Amino acid sequence: SFATLVGAQAIDEKTKAIANDLMDKASQSQAYSIVESLTTEVGPRLAGSEAEARARDWAVKKFKKMGFKNVRVDPFDVPWWERQVESAEIVSPFPQPLYVTALGGSVSTPDGGVTGEVAIFPNLAALKAVKDGGLKGKVVFIDELMTRTQDGSGYRVAVAKRRETAYESARVGAVGALIRSVGTNAQRFPHTGQMRSGENRTEPSVPTAALSAPDADQLVRVASRGKPVKVKMTIKTESRPRAQSGNVIAEIPGRTKPEEIVLIGAHLDSWDLGTGAVDDGAGVGIVMGAAKLLMDNVRKAPDRTIRVVLFGSEEVGLVGARAYAKQHKAELKNHVLIAESDFGAGKIWRFDSRVGQGGLEAIAQMQAVLAPLGIAPGSNQASGGPDMIPMREAGVPVVGLMQNGWDYFDLHHTPNDTLDKINPDELNQNVAAYAAFIYMAAMADTRFDRDEASFD
Amino acid sequence: SFATLVGAQAIDEKTKAIANDLMDKASQSQAYSIVESLTTEVGPRLAGSEAEARARDWAVKKFKKMGFKNVRVDPFDVPWWERQVESAEIVSPFPQPLYVTALGGSVSTPDGGVTGEVAIFPNLAALKAVKDGGLKGKVVFIDELMTRTQDGSGYRVAVAKRRETAYESARVGAVGALIRSVGTNAQRFPHTGQMRSGENRTEPSVPTAALSAPDADQLVRVASRGKPVKVKMTIKTESRPRAQSGNVIAEIPGRTKPEEIVLIGAHLDSWDLGTGAVDDGAGVGIVMGAAKLLMDNVRKAPDRTIRVVLFGSEEVGLVGARAYAKQHKAELKNHVLIAESDFGAGKIWRFDSRVGQGGLEAIAQMQAVLAPLGIAPGSNQASGGPDMIPMREAGVPVVGLMQNGWDYFDLHHTPNDTLDKINPDELNQNVAAYAAFIYMAAMADTRFDRDEASFD
Ligand SMILES: [Zn+2]
Ligand SMILES: [Zn+2]
Ligand SMILES: [Zn+2]
Ligand SMILES: [Zn+2]
Repeated sequence: SFATLVGAQAIDEKTKAIANDLMDKASQSQAYSIVESLTTEVGPRLAGSEAEARARDWAVKKFKKMGFKNVRVDPFDVPWWERQVESAEIVSPFPQPLYVTALGGSVSTPDGGVTGEVAIFPNLAALKAVKDGGLKGKVVFIDELMTRTQDGSGYRVAVAKRRETAYESARVGAVGALIRSVGTNAQRFPHTGQMRSGENRTEPSVPTAALSAPDADQLVRVASRGKPVKVKMTIKTESRPRAQSGNVIAEIPGRTKPEEIVLIGAHLDSWDLGTGAVDDGAGVGIVMGAAKLLMDNVRKAPDRTIRVVLFGSEEVGLVGARAYAKQHKAELKNHVLIAESDFGAGKIWRFDSRVGQGGLEAIAQMQAVLAPLGIAPGSNQASGGPDMIPMREAGVPVVGLMQNGWDYFDLHHTPNDTLDKINPDELNQNVAAYAAFIYMAAMADTRFDRDEASFD
Repeated sequence: SFATLVGAQAIDEKTKAIANDLMDKASQSQAYSIVESLTTEVGPRLAGSEAEARARDWAVKKFKKMGFKNVRVDPFDVPWWERQVESAEIVSPFPQPLYVTALGGSVSTPDGGVTGEVAIFPNLAALKAVKDGGLKGKVVFIDELMTRTQDGSGYRVAVAKRRETAYESARVGAVGALIRSVGTNAQRFPHTGQMRSGENRTEPSVPTAALSAPDADQLVRVASRGKPVKVKMTIKTESRPRAQSGNVIAEIPGRTKPEEIVLIGAHLDSWDLGTGAVDDGAGVGIVMGAAKLLMDNVRKAPDRTIRVVLFGSEEVGLVGARAYAKQHKAELKNHVLIAESDFGAGKIWRFDSRVGQGGLEAIAQMQAVLAPLGIAPGSNQASGGPDMIPMREAGVPVVGLMQNGWDYFDLHHTPNDTLDKINPDELNQNVAAYAAFIYMAAMADTRFDRDEASFD
């Protein structure tokens, strides 16, 4: 058929054979030992912190030792924030502690904390319906549940309350706010995460913290006894408008078209509560491990350059990704295809893309090569991962190697995000897919340019 | 057969029929709502605390409302201890926080904490082999794993390190000590628990805390990098030699032999980290729920008195149980058969006893009645539950309605011991067994006196 003939030109048989060989060798990858090294030798690495700087040093050293070229750090500034004290308790009618964690960006309570009667809302929309100043002196509690889904779509709905509650609560005159954690687990871990939706959001806000699921359940049960519930919150945080962060970049230079770039990324920073194993040590291990697997097992370097980017300061608002898109604006048109791994260590089950018509047959051929890994064809509406957003919005073609995120939000942004949660076999399935993908993308005899893109 | 004839006399057919009827009605029991009420309206209830006093008030009110007779509190004194600050971190070579919780009874560090190089031991025996003063200035870490078992036997082995490490570490000159939590889960919850084995232990000790399993793994991995590991611990606790506690007692008076007592118990106190749902809110719900089920569904009160005892201050060394055995010494010989529920909310799978020869046939008949609940015959070496120990040691016959504790030590003494972990159907299987058991024990036309017992 015509499609087959076109396809045969997009990715040649020898390229597919080498991609298959990489998939076969993925069980030897260094991905797990990379995650182990990062989470052990650095641990938590909050955006703009001294620990994140140590993570960059770790990455530069590791990339160089592994044989990557053009290893460097692109520095940028980021607002810095840190938690220092966080506690909450039911004061009456049934005194008892609650397990909370401040949301990223939360302001402090006055010394001695704030105490107020709890006003419970089923969701953010219900709070938004309250008139300005209508909850003076109260503590807002948004008890919205997050839906467990394979593709993470439940998160996109649930995260709105994390982003908005602090500001909406200030608007209605509350003294503090609590949310049921954005998460899917029933363990007693509150989930943190950034509350602002924009880097420069400046409306007034109140101290805001997430309750673990059992604590949210408990607060609802206590309230169901029919007496007014008073809660005390004590939050102390510190912030500075500017601190140092950076993106770490390493390459396998292309042989015949070195200026054309296939980029794979992950983010190097993590929240402070866990050691950032599934978010996003796993992604770091997958993309470094996949590129290293290719480097070690392909005799001739691929035609295009493979660029691995470990983004800084993702968690606080894609700050590294925006810096990259700005600092590399001139070369964005040479970014042939990009992808990020930032959804844990679960198996990849679907191959999405967002490419122009001219690239679709190559995408279909890549998926066919990946199919034995259990990877199905996806849509052409890929988001590409959070750090891909600024480039995607600028028109760069992206793919999404979609991981099974069924359990991801059990761990995400909690103290429980630790190395033991990663299954090395599932991690290596990711490595197999990424290694085969980047090789094929770097060898494909086509471009993936999106029809709507215009780089000027 | 002879056995059958003897058996037929021990528990008559009418008694068995009523026991069966109670088992059928157990799904209507109030057990779950009792646990819910206790864990919601009181929450954590540390031995000797104001919260434990509120739990006694709750129990007295609840017993009276349910129609129990002779509701009363037997007061006693208990040493009081409370945690105030607890933190630990790896200072070098890879600075990062560790999640810890102080063991019950731990002393404080000096202000500013203690810092020392970590000395790792695979088990308590290895630490015991160190000569006096041999680890001056170090921080001891005992990395002993606990084995998951159905019957809790892994706990009896593992708990030694919780009890002894603080004292052994002082002996060798350490400045602090850490243990891998006594627990079976891989979640990031440290497990607390009392460190002393005796109420009056007075040897010198060092500040001692438990690491969660992921933190223990991490400390081992950090050490495996070959550089000396320095840890800082900051522990602040308060204690007083005496505080008020008490046992709450309620009865269904016997009709024909009111002075003879069938006792079922649970403990009312809990550790401070969780809400004491599986330890031992479940037991409270089971024994109160079982006695209430009997009260509501048996037209004539049973021959013997059913006594329900909610022991205070179990967690800090069976203080309530010892007080009960002392305060009720004169009636111990009239305690016909006793049992405690203190192993979570899992199903009962085995019926153990520790009775004299004369009681064995009745025990066998009880087990036969319980068999449809999935309960197998057990041994005649029952321990009877922790609060039964002082009475058992005094010679009182005991039974053990052995629960499946496979998951119990995932939650035990952690913040994660919360109501949502209890399965109401499994809880009601316990109620069925306890209700049938107490009815048969109160009606059995035999005594269970142990041959070795002598009450004088
Ligand atoms: Zn992430
Ligand atoms: Zn994240
Ligand atoms: Zn217990
Ligand atoms: Zn306990």
